[in-house]
Amino acid sequence: MKIAVIGLGKAGLPIASVIVNRGFEVVGVAIDERKCEDINGGKNPIPEEIGLDELIKMHGGKGLIATANYENAKECEIFIIIVPLFTDENNNPDYSIIESAFRNVGRILKKGDLVVLETSVPPGTTEERARKWLEEESGLKLGEFYLAYSPERIMTGFSISRLEKFPKVVGGVDKESGQKAFVTYQTFIPNLHLVSSARVAEFTKIAEGCYRDVNIGLANELFKIAGELDVNFYEARTYANHEYCHIHLPSTGVGGHCIPVYPWFLVNDMEKRDKFDYAKLLRTAREINDEMIEYWAEKIVLELECMKINRPLNELKICVKGISFREGVKELYHSRNLALAKLLSEKGLNVYVYDELFSKEEVGEMGLKYLEPEDADLVFDSFRLTLEKYDNR
Amino acid sequence: MKIAVIGLGKAGLPIASVIVNRGFEVVGVAIDERKCEDINGGKNPIPEEIGLDELIKMHGGKGLIATANYENAKECEIFIIIVPLFTDENNNPDYSIIESAFRNVGRILKKGDLVVLETSVPPGTTEERARKWLEEESGLKLGEFYLAYSPERIMTGFSISRLEKFPKVVGGVDKESGQKAFVTYQTFIPNLHLVSSARVAEFTKIAEGCYRDVNIGLANELFKIAGELDVNFYEARTYANHEYCHIHLPSTGVGGHCIPVYPWFLVNDMEKRDKFDYAKLLRTAREINDEMIEYWAEKIVLELECMKINRPLNELKICVKGISFREGVKELYHSRNLALAKLLSEKGLNVYVYDELFSKEEVGEMGLKYLEPEDADLVFDSFRLTLEKYDNR
Repeated sequence: MKIAVIGLGKAGLPIASVIVNRGFEVVGVAIDERKCEDINGGKNPIPEEIGLDELIKMHGGKGLIATANYENAKECEIFIIIVPLFTDENNNPDYSIIESAFRNVGRILKKGDLVVLETSVPPGTTEERARKWLEEESGLKLGEFYLAYSPERIMTGFSISRLEKFPKVVGGVDKESGQKAFVTYQTFIPNLHLVSSARVAEFTKIAEGCYRDVNIGLANELFKIAGELDVNFYEARTYANHEYCHIHLPSTGVGGHCIPVYPWFLVNDMEKRDKFDYAKLLRTAREINDEMIEYWAEKIVLELECMKINRPLNELKICVKGISFREGVKELYHSRNLALAKLLSEKGLNVYVYDELFSKEEVGEMGLKYLEPEDADLVFDSFRLTLEKYDNR
Repeated sequence: MKIAVIGLGKAGLPIASVIVNRGFEVVGVAIDERKCEDINGGKNPIPEEIGLDELIKMHGGKGLIATANYENAKECEIFIIIVPLFTDENNNPDYSIIESAFRNVGRILKKGDLVVLETSVPPGTTEERARKWLEEESGLKLGEFYLAYSPERIMTGFSISRLEKFPKVVGGVDKESGQKAFVTYQTFIPNLHLVSSARVAEFTKIAEGCYRDVNIGLANELFKIAGELDVNFYEARTYANHEYCHIHLPSTGVGGHCIPVYPWFLVNDMEKRDKFDYAKLLRTAREINDEMIEYWAEKIVLELECMKINRPLNELKICVKGISFREGVKELYHSRNLALAKLLSEKGLNVYVYDELFSKEEVGEMGLKYLEPEDADLVFDSFRLTLEKYDNR
């Protein structure tokens, strides 16, 4: 069985590596030719992914062939599509990358082949869109090929172990597709569950993201309230939480490709159906999390005013320490920490940033100023949510 | 050490029983003289509370003396206040019962005594209100007596085991009170944690309630969305949930004395401070949960219309099965199931109710009509959220 993995990013490359390591031949398709060369040369492009170095070194260019050309995957019988889905300024999904991947697969699709989408998408995407794209390009009808959905549940840094241990879900566009995908995936995913449809599998992943966004929103809300009430949020959280209570941690908001994006899939869908009331908690949580940078900006300005240094506010050096969306992951997509630094700059303050994952040059390229925290007057630690003052006069 | 427990309701009587069972003399104060007689006669007024029968039988009228007269508690050194707090039509707390209990205790308070409040209250209540009530009545100052807060975490039916196993929190109005309450409570609560203040302990309990209300609101919202998307919510929930994801169950809303009440403590407090944005998730979750009865009423009406029985809608017999706020607990406070039955009646429909915990007479006293489910045309099961049709023409 020869398997194609379309997309070799932070989600695609780990699953391609896990599959090849189970003894299957894998063709990985990625648009970035240099990345393909690296992988074929045994070089891992995601060094922060634990266990990936060894797998790429062992299989890159051998069992796992990376290519930019779909023609090289035409002998595959299984196509796993795991490419990014971005959203536009109105938080609506832009399907162009997924559509292109499906149409390219459609052109090399043969009778009996199985296509599985892994990208997190609005429920209904596989059944309504992916099927149409494949049928249009291949000239085949569903039934002649199989189509299913199985959401990736990776977490950068822990993706290999997640694929090996975490429960994974798969659902077909029809019954045969579900069965076929289940049996196939079982050969490389140990903890696999078949659900009744692709739509249910899609909803499963989005619901999980909504749970996290709403609970982070709740933590941020309770954190702000605790501050008003002169209560140490972290102490109260420690004792509020038990087996039935899971209050999350506060933050500067929620970043990355997943959690801040998924709730909009449901909110926008419900609003298009005139069901404005059906997603109001999801919308409110999104607002709370996105607005946290305003809260922190206000705290920072108040702190600067309290410092009463004999200089105008805009001369004091503020350092935002930590700009990536999550600690330890070099990724800025929807980073609220970066947004906070930009917001403070827009307010006319003298803002610098520091992040151990980014060099001075990389920071400069973002249009921001670099500063070591100890050279600042005030340091905001984005991950610890602490404000520290230094005497740098 | 002689201990008074003020309030012998669903929360007070279990803790009084656990304390007496540890070998302490307990005076229980309750306004209901008949209930006191029952308890002193060894009769348990809360039969659904597992393990309470035996404790009341063993200690009622012996180690545990129930009385309506505070004077009988004047030799106690420890006063545990665990009386109800109701809210008014604007969801503001009505402190009158708590105030009366504190003032009555104040009148018999002696130097060195400890008073602990257990009722769930808005953060700041013990420090700001309870202290004042005690000082005014006793003529003593804090420091001459001790004052602390330790939230009850009971759940009717499981309160005894909760007191024996569940983590319990205590915090003092000052450091000495916290220490004194911690040492005292340790003699009868095995899993006890001292926090830095009464305020933190109060917030702990309210935060836990908010977590549950918001997560039930989220479950209700996702349930409604899943319905729109033709997804089986329960199936998706099963596979969405894992060690980091705890999507709750949908419902007709949230009833009882606790969860629907606590979020308002924070919402109203924040709104009084002009921080309208600080509790918007809590407010939205409250709205969603309270509005669930509208959702179910609509489903029921749609179902009736689909039945196309050759009779006018208002002649069809609808039975709401389950009217208590929680299954197995004979308690109607803020019951959304009861509210649903009333809402359907107000719409002019022919509504009956059935609940195995309530007799036909008790149902009649509520102004509702009683019917066995099998005699109805349509049965809505409030706990299972199912609609069943019967052919009763």
